Amino acid sequence: MSERLVATAAELRRRVDGWRSAGPGVGAGAVGTDPGAGGGAVGFVPTMGALHAGHLSLMRRARAECPRVVVSIFVNPRQFGPTEDFGRYPRTLEADLRLCAEAGVDAVFCPAPEEVYPPGFQTTVSVGPLTRRLCGLDRPDHFDGVTTVVARLFGLVRPTHAYFGQKDYQQASVIRRMVADLALEPEIVVCPIVREADGLAMSSRNRYLSADERQRALALCRGLERAQERFGAGERDAAAVTAALAEQLREAGAAVDYAAACDPVDLEPVARLESGTVLLVAARIGATRLLDNHILE
Amino acid sequence: MSERLVATAAELRRRVDGWRSAGPGVGAGAVGTDPGAGGGAVGFVPTMGALHAGHLSLMRRARAECPRVVVSIFVNPRQFGPTEDFGRYPRTLEADLRLCAEAGVDAVFCPAPEEVYPPGFQTTVSVGPLTRRLCGLDRPDHFDGVTTVVARLFGLVRPTHAYFGQKDYQQASVIRRMVADLALEPEIVVCPIVREADGLAMSSRNRYLSADERQRALALCRGLERAQERFGAGERDAAAVTAALAEQLREAGAAVDYAAACDPVDLEPVARLESGTVLLVAARIGATRLLDNHILE
Repeated sequence: MSERLVATAAELRRRVDGWRSAGPGVGAGAVGTDPGAGGGAVGFVPTMGALHAGHLSLMRRARAECPRVVVSIFVNPRQFGPTEDFGRYPRTLEADLRLCAEAGVDAVFCPAPEEVYPPGFQTTVSVGPLTRRLCGLDRPDHFDGVTTVVARLFGLVRPTHAYFGQKDYQQASVIRRMVADLALEPEIVVCPIVREADGLAMSSRNRYLSADERQRALALCRGLERAQERFGAGERDAAAVTAALAEQLREAGAAVDYAAACDPVDLEPVARLESGTVLLVAARIGATRLLDNHILE
Repeated sequence: MSERLVATAAELRRRVDGWRSAGPGVGAGAVGTDPGAGGGAVGFVPTMGALHAGHLSLMRRARAECPRVVVSIFVNPRQFGPTEDFGRYPRTLEADLRLCAEAGVDAVFCPAPEEVYPPGFQTTVSVGPLTRRLCGLDRPDHFDGVTTVVARLFGLVRPTHAYFGQKDYQQASVIRRMVADLALEPEIVVCPIVREADGLAMSSRNRYLSADERQRALALCRGLERAQERFGAGERDAAAVTAALAEQLREAGAAVDYAAACDPVDLEPVARLESGTVLLVAARIGATRLLDNHILE
């Protein structure tokens, strides 16, 4: 275990450089083509720990596509608002390391805060207007925190591929945009949502839910299933479908932050549903804010 | 000439990938050590064209240190304020290309604006508080424009080394900070100010000056020389020296934006001068804003 755990950027760089120099040259084919699972491919799964089956699916995908896989575990203070759950965010390092070992991860980067944000750190990466809608309305500085830490982690890790979950759909879209705009090297791979047996999207925050809240939280996935059914039956009116979705959430006692139908790339709201339109919901069940989404098919 | 000129990022990437794969693996030694003039080193000199002897010194340094050298020529609209000289900024492409050829540059990247900022581009890289003092007071969005375009150009070019002139001291400090914070690959090399025979710091904007203004512009370098003399004679009071410097500029009919004595890394103002303190001036001679600086020795 201790050999897999890496605490400093310098030690991580030493290892990754060794792995990458075993493969093809830097950025080979990085513009518009898939570098594929070349000899020097390094897959990266950035996480905040509290790992679950969703994270595991990212690690497995990385493992399948890249000869080397790095997971980072860092609860990033800059992506939490002042009234949010940074302090009580679940920290389960031992179990996380076990899961990484089982998944065959080569290095788990667990940096101290001052390794990520050394004295004098003062750079921010912002993506807008993509970050100002949906979750950005309720969490104004959240995405700047995400893009800044992901950009820095990309710099420290230097992966060829990076893996994100579709559950945080807007986050994945924002990362894709940042990577395109700054011409960063890693190919971004977005993996399907992993769900509990009853349909609830996996999330580290699910463990905040009481038994009753856990039951009511099913309204998110049930609402999205119902919306898919209506779309399958011919409904194309986005406003009608999102209003029904929000109503279904409220009936379960959820406070709805949004229920939206959007273009899958720029997340602009759409008026007419079509195959590929993404439905996104954010709702609070008690004190816990949950996300889910579904791409209409 | 046509072979050296590159208009698209895709073509540039093709060439740079070929050069880099001829050398050692990606980022070898990039944390804290100088990768040196390795076989795969690619030096990069980002410019806005209107090249002069200052740029030439950057190209020569890059040429001496790296087997391959890329120069970019792009007048970046995002680093000009709405009332600034973007429209009339000198464009001298033919002469620039000749100079690059003479300097033995391997590729001159002259992208169209939509190659640098394609549709949907929406990412900003900001460094603060370093960008909010000195020039940042008069040009509030200037440095965001610089850091964003430099970050994107670093992504498009993927250099191992990048060369900047000390004449734009604050800019070089901001770039260094961005590169450290985002753990970007290129080593930043800052080259000494190149001056005309009479001492005026080389600048593309010098060609705006009338004969009379050209004469009065010497107050910047003369003022800095006088400050160095006073420091050499034992003066340590920053306020006294910068006040005299500003007065000397005003006597030449310059409008002084600032005359400051600062820490050489974070550009915080200092009260007491010491060896290594940087003196920086920005002043307008007629409609032309000029910069100069000097590190006390």
